[in-house]
Amino acid sequence: MPQAAERLDNHPEIFSNEILIDVIALQPTATAFSRIKTECGGDVEKMKKEFMNIVQHAGKFQCPVTRSGGILIGRIKEIGSDLADHTEAKVGDKIATLVSLSLTPLKIYSIEDISLETEQVFVKAEAILFESGIYAKLPSDLDENISLALMDVAGAPAQVAANVKTGDTVVVIGAGKAGILSLAEAKKRVAPSGKVICMEYDGQQCKTVRKLGIADHVIQANAQSPVEAFGKYNKVMNGKLADFTVNTVNVPDTELTTILTTKNEGLIYFFSMSTNFVKASLGAEGIKKYTRMMIGNGYYPNHTEIAFSIVRNHQKVKNYFAAKYTK
Amino acid sequence: MPQAAERLDNHPEIFSNEILIDVIALQPTATAFSRIKTECGGDVEKMKKEFMNIVQHAGKFQCPVTRSGGILIGRIKEIGSDLADHTEAKVGDKIATLVSLSLTPLKIYSIEDISLETEQVFVKAEAILFESGIYAKLPSDLDENISLALMDVAGAPAQVAANVKTGDTVVVIGAGKAGILSLAEAKKRVAPSGKVICMEYDGQQCKTVRKLGIADHVIQANAQSPVEAFGKYNKVMNGKLADFTVNTVNVPDTELTTILTTKNEGLIYFFSMSTNFVKASLGAEGIKKYTRMMIGNGYYPNHTEIAFSIVRNHQKVKNYFAAKYTK
Repeated sequence: MPQAAERLDNHPEIFSNEILIDVIALQPTATAFSRIKTECGGDVEKMKKEFMNIVQHAGKFQCPVTRSGGILIGRIKEIGSDLADHTEAKVGDKIATLVSLSLTPLKIYSIEDISLETEQVFVKAEAILFESGIYAKLPSDLDENISLALMDVAGAPAQVAANVKTGDTVVVIGAGKAGILSLAEAKKRVAPSGKVICMEYDGQQCKTVRKLGIADHVIQANAQSPVEAFGKYNKVMNGKLADFTVNTVNVPDTELTTILTTKNEGLIYFFSMSTNFVKASLGAEGIKKYTRMMIGNGYYPNHTEIAFSIVRNHQKVKNYFAAKYTK
Repeated sequence: MPQAAERLDNHPEIFSNEILIDVIALQPTATAFSRIKTECGGDVEKMKKEFMNIVQHAGKFQCPVTRSGGILIGRIKEIGSDLADHTEAKVGDKIATLVSLSLTPLKIYSIEDISLETEQVFVKAEAILFESGIYAKLPSDLDENISLALMDVAGAPAQVAANVKTGDTVVVIGAGKAGILSLAEAKKRVAPSGKVICMEYDGQQCKTVRKLGIADHVIQANAQSPVEAFGKYNKVMNGKLADFTVNTVNVPDTELTTILTTKNEGLIYFFSMSTNFVKASLGAEGIKKYTRMMIGNGYYPNHTEIAFSIVRNHQKVKNYFAAKYTK
């Protein structure tokens, strides 16, 4: 399995079931980028050397300390003969990979620049996508940085699209980008009679969600304090629990609040990587809840199209992402 | 929340929504028991003092090092007036608690004995169950130690009962007690045309499962080696993947094998507390699988009755548990 492998073969020649990419830029995870930035004291030249060293050593980009990778942007240079008939991709298409860089063989010829603002590493490089590797064509009608921001969290609204129906009560915990997209998708799906509830810690972000018009109720609460947060929820909802709850909060200890707000017959989607398996499991057992709790997954068929379509069809949400992610 | 509280009020007087228990024995978790046994060099008198100290200090039993508790066995002494009409429990019923001792106020008057064999602590003590606290009546037709063994893992076969239907392909990874019960329940539910596959590491245990007649195929494989284990699975099943897979293996790094053996449209139940949320999530994403993955939960309505009924109706499985758990 390439993720666990210390070193990948990055010779830029593809098999008949692979795709060769002319890489434009790496977009390391925030974790990996900030680790390297800190270690190099923000010195771009030192950072270039560090990125180069990592890739030369490993044949891929995976931060040796945090073990995290990221994604890349590039153009398709060559499509293996076995794939040519089975893929919609064409040579020249501008794409972003959706599998981690820690799985992607990469050969860097030179590092041109590093943007500390967009956290991108501009390179001359080639990468190989395996048949099972996933990528998305960058849409021509959306700004590239908006598209990248959407793709990063597209798994969350895709699950809303797959599981929410008219009349449902939907709770979205956390109103970052995954939360905003989930709220917008839920608001559309529960119509006309269902309700969408946003629970968010930050007062300013609560105001933003209210202005976007994507929630029936916005509750300012800290999901790390279950008794208090659930009390606020109950006051607003009169004890009516959720059919579907998605947790997008990137801090620990929000499992119990998520479980408390959801019906036994409901479904919880833990999209946050801060979710602790044992805390969720024992938390539910301790309060006698048998709500189904799903482990989040960044992939769902056509998930990027679902995310792109949300912003295309919701001008306020589009403006929000444009203001936040266009440089 | 009583689990996080350092100290509980253990005054043995109940409110109208509580139940008072005359405790017969504590059954600490294997983790907690062995920690204390090791610290005391296996000296029962020293262990008695340590158990007494913990409960006197905290008002409950929760190992201060491992933070785990256990369950207790006792008889109902008093039922709060508000509960009397809403519960089937009667004064004098012999029960076992199903919520952790870390949530249960406990007052010990004396410790009579400790069995290093059954890992039980025999006490004169009283405990209080909250309304939401769960317990199960110990059945009179089954040996007490068998009942306790079954109750401990009843959540796994309950999910098989809730999710498996005729014609399904079911994979059970790990053939410990949760695995054996899940296999027996699955074999009944998939009939007449479905298939049940057991994947187990230990050769002796594979033989046992074959003799019990609760699997159509028994595959001896190490689920920590996904490529090899999945290869063996494919050889037996010709690429036919599971509709439902339950993972009961108490070792880390078996997430990927579980995901590989399951259909996209299937359902995975991670019952094992060794499951790593991030490994499951990124593992599925990395191989483009969108199989629903559920976080296990020890509770499901009537789960203990489901487990008791499996052994009552399957003589070979009953004999297996009798040989293993009757002292």
